[in-house]
Amino acid sequence: MLEAVNSIVQQICFLDLTKPVVAGCSGGPDSLCLLDALHRLGLPVIAAHLNHGLRPEAAQEARFVGGEAQRRGVPFVSQEADVARYAGENSLSLEEAARSLRYRFLFEQALRLGAQAVAVAHTADDQVETVLMHFLRGAGLAGLKGMLPRLLPNPWSESIPLVRPLLFTWREEVLAYCRERGLEPVQDQSNLDTRFTRNRLRHALIPLLEGYNPEVRQAIFRASISLAGDEAVLEGLVEAAWQECLLLHGQGYVAMQAQTLAGQLPGVQRRLVRRAIAWLRPGLRDIDFRTVERALEFLARPTRSARLELAAGLSLFREAEGLWLTAWEVDLPGAHWPQIPTGEAPLALGAPGEVSLPSGWWLAAEAPGEVGPVYNRTLENADPYTTWLDAEALAFPLFVRGRHPGDRFQPLGLAGHSVKLSDYYINVKLPRRAREGWPLVLSAGGEIAWIPGFRPAHPFRLTGETRKAVHLHLRRGKDG
Amino acid sequence: MLEAVNSIVQQICFLDLTKPVVAGCSGGPDSLCLLDALHRLGLPVIAAHLNHGLRPEAAQEARFVGGEAQRRGVPFVSQEADVARYAGENSLSLEEAARSLRYRFLFEQALRLGAQAVAVAHTADDQVETVLMHFLRGAGLAGLKGMLPRLLPNPWSESIPLVRPLLFTWREEVLAYCRERGLEPVQDQSNLDTRFTRNRLRHALIPLLEGYNPEVRQAIFRASISLAGDEAVLEGLVEAAWQECLLLHGQGYVAMQAQTLAGQLPGVQRRLVRRAIAWLRPGLRDIDFRTVERALEFLARPTRSARLELAAGLSLFREAEGLWLTAWEVDLPGAHWPQIPTGEAPLALGAPGEVSLPSGWWLAAEAPGEVGPVYNRTLENADPYTTWLDAEALAFPLFVRGRHPGDRFQPLGLAGHSVKLSDYYINVKLPRRAREGWPLVLSAGGEIAWIPGFRPAHPFRLTGETRKAVHLHLRRGKDG
Repeated sequence: MLEAVNSIVQQICFLDLTKPVVAGCSGGPDSLCLLDALHRLGLPVIAAHLNHGLRPEAAQEARFVGGEAQRRGVPFVSQEADVARYAGENSLSLEEAARSLRYRFLFEQALRLGAQAVAVAHTADDQVETVLMHFLRGAGLAGLKGMLPRLLPNPWSESIPLVRPLLFTWREEVLAYCRERGLEPVQDQSNLDTRFTRNRLRHALIPLLEGYNPEVRQAIFRASISLAGDEAVLEGLVEAAWQECLLLHGQGYVAMQAQTLAGQLPGVQRRLVRRAIAWLRPGLRDIDFRTVERALEFLARPTRSARLELAAGLSLFREAEGLWLTAWEVDLPGAHWPQIPTGEAPLALGAPGEVSLPSGWWLAAEAPGEVGPVYNRTLENADPYTTWLDAEALAFPLFVRGRHPGDRFQPLGLAGHSVKLSDYYINVKLPRRAREGWPLVLSAGGEIAWIPGFRPAHPFRLTGETRKAVHLHLRRGKDG
Repeated sequence: MLEAVNSIVQQICFLDLTKPVVAGCSGGPDSLCLLDALHRLGLPVIAAHLNHGLRPEAAQEARFVGGEAQRRGVPFVSQEADVARYAGENSLSLEEAARSLRYRFLFEQALRLGAQAVAVAHTADDQVETVLMHFLRGAGLAGLKGMLPRLLPNPWSESIPLVRPLLFTWREEVLAYCRERGLEPVQDQSNLDTRFTRNRLRHALIPLLEGYNPEVRQAIFRASISLAGDEAVLEGLVEAAWQECLLLHGQGYVAMQAQTLAGQLPGVQRRLVRRAIAWLRPGLRDIDFRTVERALEFLARPTRSARLELAAGLSLFREAEGLWLTAWEVDLPGAHWPQIPTGEAPLALGAPGEVSLPSGWWLAAEAPGEVGPVYNRTLENADPYTTWLDAEALAFPLFVRGRHPGDRFQPLGLAGHSVKLSDYYINVKLPRRAREGWPLVLSAGGEIAWIPGFRPAHPFRLTGETRKAVHLHLRRGKDG
């Protein structure tokens, strides 16, 4: 195995065997194997451990990694982090916070110590699990390609690569290596970030998929390599198209040459729109598929409407030869988010059953209408600023209010249980200052039926049995 | 739903509502819904039914479809096929044979009747199942993109498109449509082609995946649309690169400009190699990932060996500025496949333990050697003409012979059960005339241990516990 890791380290990670590398080491089998293997290859490795302080054994694990480093005469750096506090301050889950602090720590150490790279211990099994998770949530190529063995630039550095020397090694090979070398790792906590889902995939789903294809792990792993190659080709192409289409961009706006953009293949258009959204919302992890499709449709039919509210906080419009994507906070100086003052307002059905909100927003409900026998979920409901709800599931009168403490919500598609509204807002990246007054439409019984700009609630969705639907929409300005 | 199908028919399938379309109709819910919907849209539809003659109810189903056509005043064409005989004559499974004959029939009718297209009734659920099947077997983008709503050219015609007007409609919508319209379909046999796997996916795996993501079907469906867009971009790019790289091609050979090919990104190189293989072996459905990687490696290191046996029946070599891919049957006139005359030959270990075969082939086994603690399945064993087997699992002496009736084989990765050797040869597309005399390496106990050019047997594979391995190889010519 050492020989294989050696060739990956040199030929794929492009590491120089004479220069130092910071290796993240939790003390688990993967990272202990990484530390041992890099050291045996003669790399001047630096063991780095972040104590998340989340579990009682944490301090002991830090000492264990320190001891393993000392035995090999390898430098050891360690730090304690207050993960819980950081999570609270940044509205992150504990898992996200731990991951964020860990990588920040590793790159800080690499910079401080003049290391050529940060190495982490993801294995081929981690890769398969990652690709499978992305597949289950409907990711495109960028997700299905999985993790790269060498990533530069990365979210933490423009100059220090993140490398994964064990990415072509299977977990069972790591465990056999540990046995063979007499290594006695602690229970791995390095996968804390996605522990629950990942463990279910690892212990339940993947063994089950092996009943369909005994070589499913190898199959997914090989596919990820092909897909990463395809993604690299497309990203090169899109970079060129981006340069060609871009008119202007700055704080809060991107303008593209509409004609040039419209002349691209849809696959390229989608990636350019995603890139523009990512430029304005760098924190947004997943850009919704339907958001991108709506933008493409707007581009294809420029005369249909003058302006499109694309997703919470972004607008799309044409001006002269440009297609502009702007963030509300720039586009609309002053108070501009849809917000409802304290209190509740009834929402009557049918004109003039409208609720007027500050900044020219209107929330309106039409009288219940017939629907076809079946509601086509694929083609409809792409616009988050409008929705149709099952009239027989609702209690009237509907009413509108802002957030109350303890509010819960069951987003469309999540059958069986609800989530805290505060968590939902964090997940969909609604800016903190907009959360308190964001208008909610409720059924008379007090259940949230629709969050305009986001999702209807599952219990009120249209189904094959729906006979009458209520049409709701949130609009800015009277011209719609 | 009708409105949604209408917009797909016109805007995505590009059908002209005044021109005839042949609709494949098994009589099941999907195809009955398709027939009814196209007819109601005013399309001059022709109902077409192929009687596979495989089940007792077949004739009754043909009459049922005829009756449904008559009720609507729609022309009906039907034919009986001898699927079993066709399967036997062409070494196909019954499922493959039925599918092949069905599409051939539909396109023959379309051509004869001057139809603008052949329509089939695949739904969004079929799409999800297709993508999932491809994912489980490790397909790249070309498989993960799923079926297209409009395919032209297609394997059956250069001028008549295959269209799928229900590809954006969910099965539950089809069933609701049938109920609403009072349609009473027969049990669907249109999915006969992959019935077993598909039914397991549909009834067992997908419901289980919904426990991981309640919207997993929608997620996979949406991903397939993005991936199809990406694939279209890449195929455009690769078409241009193919024109740029191609030196010569003809019956049994493709020559590419090695320098130009080597200058492409790996993702493009992979696709060009696949295209060259597909040119020479149009029947080959899945081109093995490792075969393509070996070709790329050969291209990157031209001096390492003069010639590479790429996969059964194809060779790769460089000559002047060209990289040549040739089929053995062209490249080696005369008797050229590795073949063993009737009888058995013992295969001793170590020089001169070689078996000489006609046409300059040599099968050799080296004396058992130590192996490292763990065998890296990912990096090794990419060359099907060489293998390593666990010396302690084998019984000696090994021996070599051709196929015997009733031979079974347990290919590497298929734990727990074996397949008929005759089926295995069909699956891997070994030409029929090469099957009888293709050399097999057997353990003294009579179990097939390795099929040179294909796979080692699972029970003899290297594992983490292997201590000594036997190295076997099949070579052509004494210079290796």
